Amino acid sequence: MSPTDSSTANRIEIRVRYPECDPMGVAHHAAYPVWFEMGRTELLRQSGVSYRQLEADGVLFAVVDLTLRYRSPARYDDLLTLETRNTGSGRARIDHAYELSRDGLVLATGTSTVVCLDKQGRPRPIPEFLGMVES
Amino acid sequence: MSPTDSSTANRIEIRVRYPECDPMGVAHHAAYPVWFEMGRTELLRQSGVSYRQLEADGVLFAVVDLTLRYRSPARYDDLLTLETRNTGSGRARIDHAYELSRDGLVLATGTSTVVCLDKQGRPRPIPEFLGMVES
Amino acid sequence: MSPTDSSTANRIEIRVRYPECDPMGVAHHAAYPVWFEMGRTELLRQSGVSYRQLEADGVLFAVVDLTLRYRSPARYDDLLTLETRNTGSGRARIDHAYELSRDGLVLATGTSTVVCLDKQGRPRPIPEFLGMVES
Amino acid sequence: MSPTDSSTANRIEIRVRYPECDPMGVAHHAAYPVWFEMGRTELLRQSGVSYRQLEADGVLFAVVDLTLRYRSPARYDDLLTLETRNTGSGRARIDHAYELSRDGLVLATGTSTVVCLDKQGRPRPIPEFLGMVES
Repeated sequence: MSPTDSSTANRIEIRVRYPECDPMGVAHHAAYPVWFEMGRTELLRQSGVSYRQLEADGVLFAVVDLTLRYRSPARYDDLLTLETRNTGSGRARIDHAYELSRDGLVLATGTSTVVCLDKQGRPRPIPEFLGMVES
Repeated sequence: MSPTDSSTANRIEIRVRYPECDPMGVAHHAAYPVWFEMGRTELLRQSGVSYRQLEADGVLFAVVDLTLRYRSPARYDDLLTLETRNTGSGRARIDHAYELSRDGLVLATGTSTVVCLDKQGRPRPIPEFLGMVES
Repeated sequence: MSPTDSSTANRIEIRVRYPECDPMGVAHHAAYPVWFEMGRTELLRQSGVSYRQLEADGVLFAVVDLTLRYRSPARYDDLLTLETRNTGSGRARIDHAYELSRDGLVLATGTSTVVCLDKQGRPRPIPEFLGMVES
Repeated sequence: MSPTDSSTANRIEIRVRYPECDPMGVAHHAAYPVWFEMGRTELLRQSGVSYRQLEADGVLFAVVDLTLRYRSPARYDDLLTLETRNTGSGRARIDHAYELSRDGLVLATGTSTVVCLDKQGRPRPIPEFLGMVES
């Protein structure tokens, strides 16, 4: 599948908020996982699925694994580009990779794995209509 | 009732966290409502009630009104004292006042009103065992 | 001045983020001051001024007063409209009013006062080029 | 060095805050890096060093690498135990490992690497008085 396939990769823009920045004057490292989640939400929306609706239907996704590499700081009011890519999936698991950049300069990269849960927090298979291909 | 009555006032200590501070090097103003909520939680606990248990029992409290006056900045790693005081209540409403200080210097004051809701988000009377006196 | 004057009022859209929502399933009340600040930033940008640049030039604004009235909850993934309005100013002070709505339904209103500070945190007059009219 | 040496490992307690929890009713995954940072701060304080003072002296630490594994959810009002351990260091680098638990049940583990920077954001050697042993 091509990386530009709408169901496997997307780009969003993120404006760095003032309270996301710390006394060093740069975006705090805990802001990045929040942005990555926004990337996942928009990637899902792009393929026609609302995570909010999924949740209402009892299909939840919980992050079980997260890695982040910070290369260069993001600053207040920076307009960042986040690329989110689906890099694999299993019966109840989806992997993503992230690249955050500003004007072509890569600021950070990361990966995550989410697992599919029911409302009681038990693992459940990913619904077929999400169209994940096992890999 | 005396202001030092355990069910109507309490004091907690709060250590200012790094990501609560912004590029000005001071605690961001949106951190204060979070601290006030911690004060309410501990005030409740002090009178033998767990807000977590209340919520599990379908008794929720939502903030409907909030005022804040910021006098002097709080800084990273400051050890602050928050005094939370129950200043009034009605059938489905509780009012609180807050004073945040560091070494006796008042940094901020505030007030809030919470209303009691059921799980569907509809107003409901405050349970009697919470012992609120209408005022 | 008309309220639609670009230097005195503006509208921005805000997508409610997942971690801005709490176990009640609604946006936490401490998220609103963060959104209000985004409104102020964009109102400033709309009149040709970057708050980031101001700060680099030693012109800081600190919130000294904040009021909020919550009428109806905002939910995850809601697309909200925030209207920010400059409602007055003094030598070193600017007042704003806020109205947050979803599809025409007002969810919350608020006000704030910011004061102009220098890099040492001392009050200073608002620079003339910001074009504030005293009121 | 023994892992119980006061300069290489410590334990702190963390009470999960309401706005740290999301609509799933559990602590949001972006709260964990904030807690890890609290662990680093207290580990430093335990060995007689204030990070706040370090920063005032122009010795900054920036996170360049972070990994997290989430095993079991933390909930609102849970009293968690965070163990932070110094697992290695270099000329300008310190590694830590984290274990977050509740009543002996491990909820999450993680690692991070911080690098030492000067006020201009350039790498600089870790001051000798911090007593890091290269590994």
